[in-house]
Amino acid sequence: MRISGLAAATGVPVATLKYYLREGLVPPGAATSRTQADYDDVHVARVRLVRALTESAGLSLAAVRDVLAALDDPPTSRHDLLGAAHHALVAAEGEGMSREEPGAVGDDEARRRVLELVAERGWCDDPLLVDRLGEQLRAADAAGVAVSDEYLRALAAAADRVAAADLSTVRGEPADALRQVVLGTLLTDPLLVTLRRMAQERASREAAEG
Amino acid sequence: MRISGLAAATGVPVATLKYYLREGLVPPGAATSRTQADYDDVHVARVRLVRALTESAGLSLAAVRDVLAALDDPPTSRHDLLGAAHHALVAAEGEGMSREEPGAVGDDEARRRVLELVAERGWCDDPLLVDRLGEQLRAADAAGVAVSDEYLRALAAAADRVAAADLSTVRGEPADALRQVVLGTLLTDPLLVTLRRMAQERASREAAEG
Repeated sequence: MRISGLAAATGVPVATLKYYLREGLVPPGAATSRTQADYDDVHVARVRLVRALTESAGLSLAAVRDVLAALDDPPTSRHDLLGAAHHALVAAEGEGMSREEPGAVGDDEARRRVLELVAERGWCDDPLLVDRLGEQLRAADAAGVAVSDEYLRALAAAADRVAAADLSTVRGEPADALRQVVLGTLLTDPLLVTLRRMAQERASREAAEG
Repeated sequence: MRISGLAAATGVPVATLKYYLREGLVPPGAATSRTQADYDDVHVARVRLVRALTESAGLSLAAVRDVLAALDDPPTSRHDLLGAAHHALVAAEGEGMSREEPGAVGDDEARRRVLELVAERGWCDDPLLVDRLGEQLRAADAAGVAVSDEYLRALAAAADRVAAADLSTVRGEPADALRQVVLGTLLTDPLLVTLRRMAQERASREAAEG
């Protein structure tokens, strides 16, 4: 199909498709003349993936590029694979996080709480994730939202349940498994956030009625 | 303090503070001359809140405005309060979601699955949340990520646990409770997402070793 066909098949405007092509997010089509190219189902799938990552998962195009690079060049062992998946996830999300100045108020306290939680649950202390969680705790604190140890443990227990479900979906060849972990996580984070609101509505109705 | 003091206290540049003031996100200081104003702890707290909502929760300034408007004008009854909280949350997040054209492939199927889940869990079928969850399911599907019914139920069960913990933190006067629900949810969504990755690392390590 021509680029207009790719636009029709994906619902993405031709100008946006040209931008994706220019940025290398979508591979070039097979040239049929000096100014035209032919696109197929591989292109349709890639455009839909880019669209889902930007619109639903909320990634920037730079983050999408990092994720696609990891997916396009999968490691061969399952162990490296899971490391690569997390590297891609963390890279995709690292941008946009504020960096507190060293020694900011509450810095040591938030970090201490994160390391305590990690030790308690037997999680690994990936420095990027520890830093990020510390920043998020400080941001909540700065906004006047108290996150108690009890509440943090409740979130962690829920996260363990989600992770167990996540890992149960991973099977098959490394390249497929990588795709499943990275895309599955990025595209189901928003589901989890929406489900939380739905569940809150019931919990709050019960509280109001009770 | 003068605006330079507000900048020093919050770590937010003067130019950004002026923008927040112009946009009404932070209330004006008490004028001390034609070109100067005095700011106090209320301003420091508000600037930190705006910063946390934009940087950690990832809201746009327009969404921050909607959230602050709801917090600044709280309803008087607890029942209205929880409705207002969800309205503010949904409004804050509604922007940026793609709208599928009516009749898009998979539209009815995703919606049917959402309504089935809502009925199964006794959640209420808030049209905004149902639409959003449907869109998110379609986005995952478009990106080639299969979300099985079993997996969706596992996420929903985890969401129920989080919501129970959320509601247990709500107490006090309606204005305080509204603040706690809205800010607590917006600022702990990122925590939940990070905790999920930490939990995945352990789960994947166990899978690799096991």
